[in-house]
Amino acid sequence: MGYGMAMSLLKAGHLVWGVDINPAQVERFQRDGGQHTAFVDIAGELDGVVAVVLNAGQLESVLFGENGIVSKLKNGSVVLACPTIPPDFAKQMAKRCEEFGIHYLDTPISGGSKKAAAGQLTLMASGTPASFEAATPFVDAISETVFRLGDIAGAGSAMKSVNQLLAGVHIAVMAEALTFGMTQGVEPAKFLEVISKCAGTSWMLENRAPHIVDGDYTPHSSVNIWPKDLEIVLEIANKEGFDAPITKAALDQFKAASEAGLGLEDDAAVAKIYARKAGLTLPGEA
Amino acid sequence: MGYGMAMSLLKAGHLVWGVDINPAQVERFQRDGGQHTAFVDIAGELDGVVAVVLNAGQLESVLFGENGIVSKLKNGSVVLACPTIPPDFAKQMAKRCEEFGIHYLDTPISGGSKKAAAGQLTLMASGTPASFEAATPFVDAISETVFRLGDIAGAGSAMKSVNQLLAGVHIAVMAEALTFGMTQGVEPAKFLEVISKCAGTSWMLENRAPHIVDGDYTPHSSVNIWPKDLEIVLEIANKEGFDAPITKAALDQFKAASEAGLGLEDDAAVAKIYARKAGLTLPGEA
Repeated sequence: MGYGMAMSLLKAGHLVWGVDINPAQVERFQRDGGQHTAFVDIAGELDGVVAVVLNAGQLESVLFGENGIVSKLKNGSVVLACPTIPPDFAKQMAKRCEEFGIHYLDTPISGGSKKAAAGQLTLMASGTPASFEAATPFVDAISETVFRLGDIAGAGSAMKSVNQLLAGVHIAVMAEALTFGMTQGVEPAKFLEVISKCAGTSWMLENRAPHIVDGDYTPHSSVNIWPKDLEIVLEIANKEGFDAPITKAALDQFKAASEAGLGLEDDAAVAKIYARKAGLTLPGEA
Repeated sequence: MGYGMAMSLLKAGHLVWGVDINPAQVERFQRDGGQHTAFVDIAGELDGVVAVVLNAGQLESVLFGENGIVSKLKNGSVVLACPTIPPDFAKQMAKRCEEFGIHYLDTPISGGSKKAAAGQLTLMASGTPASFEAATPFVDAISETVFRLGDIAGAGSAMKSVNQLLAGVHIAVMAEALTFGMTQGVEPAKFLEVISKCAGTSWMLENRAPHIVDGDYTPHSSVNIWPKDLEIVLEIANKEGFDAPITKAALDQFKAASEAGLGLEDDAAVAKIYARKAGLTLPGEA
């Protein structure tokens, strides 16, 4: 996601510094048009930082860790925080940024790597009006749809966690239904053809079931996203004493897929867990 | 569903006899244009019977019970069997009809009461080519989309059970996500506005979440459908040794709703189970 977003920022005419723990990715980005000077040297000149990391721990490290960026930024610049994190954690990050005179836009992203590369992401954004204003040039470059969810950091993350709950469950139950259908003589291709036109369809079914039908598990979005994101959902649900049994059942399937060594495959590979348990052979499998 | 389908058959120019255990419904249908003569007297002249009942037991009773219709029908007439039933049971019913020289079309329906009244249902149909041919005048009157799923009764029911698995889970997880969102400060109306445009959406979310937002539980499709249909799914899954944990988790929610006295409300009322457990107040509740 991050690479595509960086490319979208380049295309919009920004000077962009790419930072990644993988030096090969940084070099690739420099060849693709990114800036070559050392990032730390120019931190004080940046208008914004787009943090596309995996989780809350990484976000805190990037912003406030040993080499954290926030203390080096100039007054009035803005952090766009894109990972899926607990809403309370977003509030904390915003507060700590404000102490440095830095705006913080809580802006989880949705849409996948293809939309990231096309500058067509959906943002679930919340933050002060000043944060929105400071973030506008970057928001415009990376997104097609922006939901403005209020003035308080955390509201964007709350909506994202709701979306992830549904998206994760819909992928896992698509796999459950597709493989259940196979036990009843319903071929995966016929499943996709019929169900995508019926009341049982979902955005995720239409997006992910083709991967299973084609036997192609190239990771557009990997299995390993879901144990992480659904754990966040359950963690913040638990804090409110909220029981989410369907989410739990879906999480178990993604955990099983991850533990079975499928973590880096496309998340549609959760179907392999169902297929193996039931002795079914999915398309493209030997 | 049945009433709307009978009206669609009338509108298409058929002579239609309405049969229901509720005499008031029969009288209403007669006033609306249905035939007045006693059904049993003309059974031998019918070209087809459309059986819109609740389950396998009712279907068997209507077709082969004490006052069963099949033995009274003329050779070559057709039964359209619309309830959600196990595929193996559909095969049995077809075989028994054939012994009487009667065609059997396994044709579960999808779309809800509004589409039934408009003659716009989706049919998941399977049966011999002769069954399809005999059923064509009735199929044309009641449906907008027909999936022809092969020559063997049971294939239609198999696809329907796959669709019901997904539809039931999608309703329950919509309720789980909507109420979870409320614990995070996401209002139901905002949930619907945002999520329906994101990767977390589903056909059922877009159809049912508005009922919760409006606090309107008029039963377009009632809670009580789901314990029945999801039990059928699990029953036929169990026969194949197939484990469906997400379906089970959704079934538990519908059972809880049914046991809490919500069985005759719209199936979106499953959200009330989540709301009560979490101490949340849904729109329209005191």
